[in-house]
Amino acid sequence: MPLPHLTQAQAPLTCEIGAVNEFGETLQVSIPAERSLTVYVDKRELVTLMTLGAHPELLVLGYLRNQRLIKDVADIDSITVDWDVGAAAVKTHHGIEDIEAKTAKRVVTTGCGQGSVFGGLMDEVDQIVLPADAHITQSQLYGLVNTIRLKETTYKSAGSVHACALFDLAGGEPEMLLFVEDVGRHNAIDTIAGWMAMQDKSVGEADKVFYTTGRLTSEMVIKSAQMGVPIVVSRSGITQMGHQVAQAVGLCAIGRATNKRFICYANPQRLNLQPELAGPKPRTPEP
Amino acid sequence: MPLPHLTQAQAPLTCEIGAVNEFGETLQVSIPAERSLTVYVDKRELVTLMTLGAHPELLVLGYLRNQRLIKDVADIDSITVDWDVGAAAVKTHHGIEDIEAKTAKRVVTTGCGQGSVFGGLMDEVDQIVLPADAHITQSQLYGLVNTIRLKETTYKSAGSVHACALFDLAGGEPEMLLFVEDVGRHNAIDTIAGWMAMQDKSVGEADKVFYTTGRLTSEMVIKSAQMGVPIVVSRSGITQMGHQVAQAVGLCAIGRATNKRFICYANPQRLNLQPELAGPKPRTPEP
Repeated sequence: MPLPHLTQAQAPLTCEIGAVNEFGETLQVSIPAERSLTVYVDKRELVTLMTLGAHPELLVLGYLRNQRLIKDVADIDSITVDWDVGAAAVKTHHGIEDIEAKTAKRVVTTGCGQGSVFGGLMDEVDQIVLPADAHITQSQLYGLVNTIRLKETTYKSAGSVHACALFDLAGGEPEMLLFVEDVGRHNAIDTIAGWMAMQDKSVGEADKVFYTTGRLTSEMVIKSAQMGVPIVVSRSGITQMGHQVAQAVGLCAIGRATNKRFICYANPQRLNLQPELAGPKPRTPEP
Repeated sequence: MPLPHLTQAQAPLTCEIGAVNEFGETLQVSIPAERSLTVYVDKRELVTLMTLGAHPELLVLGYLRNQRLIKDVADIDSITVDWDVGAAAVKTHHGIEDIEAKTAKRVVTTGCGQGSVFGGLMDEVDQIVLPADAHITQSQLYGLVNTIRLKETTYKSAGSVHACALFDLAGGEPEMLLFVEDVGRHNAIDTIAGWMAMQDKSVGEADKVFYTTGRLTSEMVIKSAQMGVPIVVSRSGITQMGHQVAQAVGLCAIGRATNKRFICYANPQRLNLQPELAGPKPRTPEP
């Protein structure tokens, strides 16, 4: 099965601007890029995404997949991004069936980032079956969080971006397969979906863990589940609907993951606890 | 001019769930609600918003205004929210002109929250004229940030929500007119837009300041400008396009505002600096 041809468009991820601080001093600060990328499918305008611009081709591919506009990457012949005109030209082999109907229903989500999920996405949740035996140890969780902590990032230099990462636990030690930052966290997870779609299908999802700095809202949990990833870890918290979806599909949702702290919000049977690694308990429990 | 009739639908903003922490202890944690609200305009389905649910009627009103689907609240007869079915029924006096065309173009934004902005919104930016003489003193800025700090919030009890607030500087001391939290920060700003639309038109926007915990992405800056608010303050940072829009429309954009710290990213001439209030300078400048 031939994979789609993707360009590798590059654009600066940060820029310097002049600013004034509380002491009245002028200073140069670094801020993240935010640029528009209008997606054309077979020359038909589909959507404009606002993005940092690190992996535009994978973003578009993942967007099309997560919106269920394509079922298989083999449907796509090529994705050509040209930052000079802020356009991504998607060429399909046989067009997208029912594109009018698929894009007619609009759901504006709470998540940071892309926000808009075309209709029918929620309906699919009931059909998702996640790998039953997938689990993560507390030690692996700590290793994963520490890997993120040590990463050189646009966030550290310019702030104001969300990060996502995909980890593989198959080797015991968590291996970071991909790290993506974007001004929208949904862009970041869609980029990861695009990357996963380009990989060998024989690579199972059972040992995959999805990490995000953003909150686990319904859309984020749904997208993880749709990608077949049974464990999600967030630096932030969870919403009620994110929790409901995680419980419904058997997804292990871990939040507030920093240093040695975390809260497992759903399906803790996938988490092999090792409380002896957590260090001494604080005298007064934190709120 | 009669104002639209709005219901005052209520729903719980948080819920308790069981969770497991790093010591293997089970505990009850509070998380924010996230519920779907499908908006029907004259019985025609328009959009589904995912929201915390604190002010659904004002959210719908502000959404319609910020998407430029209505020009004036007087176009609206009533907004009736029923949480039992998760629906907001909008009744207009004369329908919405060109609703098909207005909702045809899709921009998926980087912002947290609502994300989807119908087409043409960016085109309007050039026409925005903000009050020329609006300004804020460093003292007022500190007062505003302190007011937010002291507020009892869903964030403090359950996390995972963004907050927005609208302040009035006309009396010297910053007066908080409205404080809104939502799982999406665009929902929060839209709710403020809805509230503003319901107020007496004689209340000027020159002395208004918009505060947000979220990042100043392009969409957030555009929405503030469209609401006529010339000064925005964020706990977080700014993106390149947010900065460009702020410069283009003469909007004062202040970020990283916590305690006595801040960075003014655009139009510092609207900020009356009082560096003597900033306290002692740190020996090593923070990154």
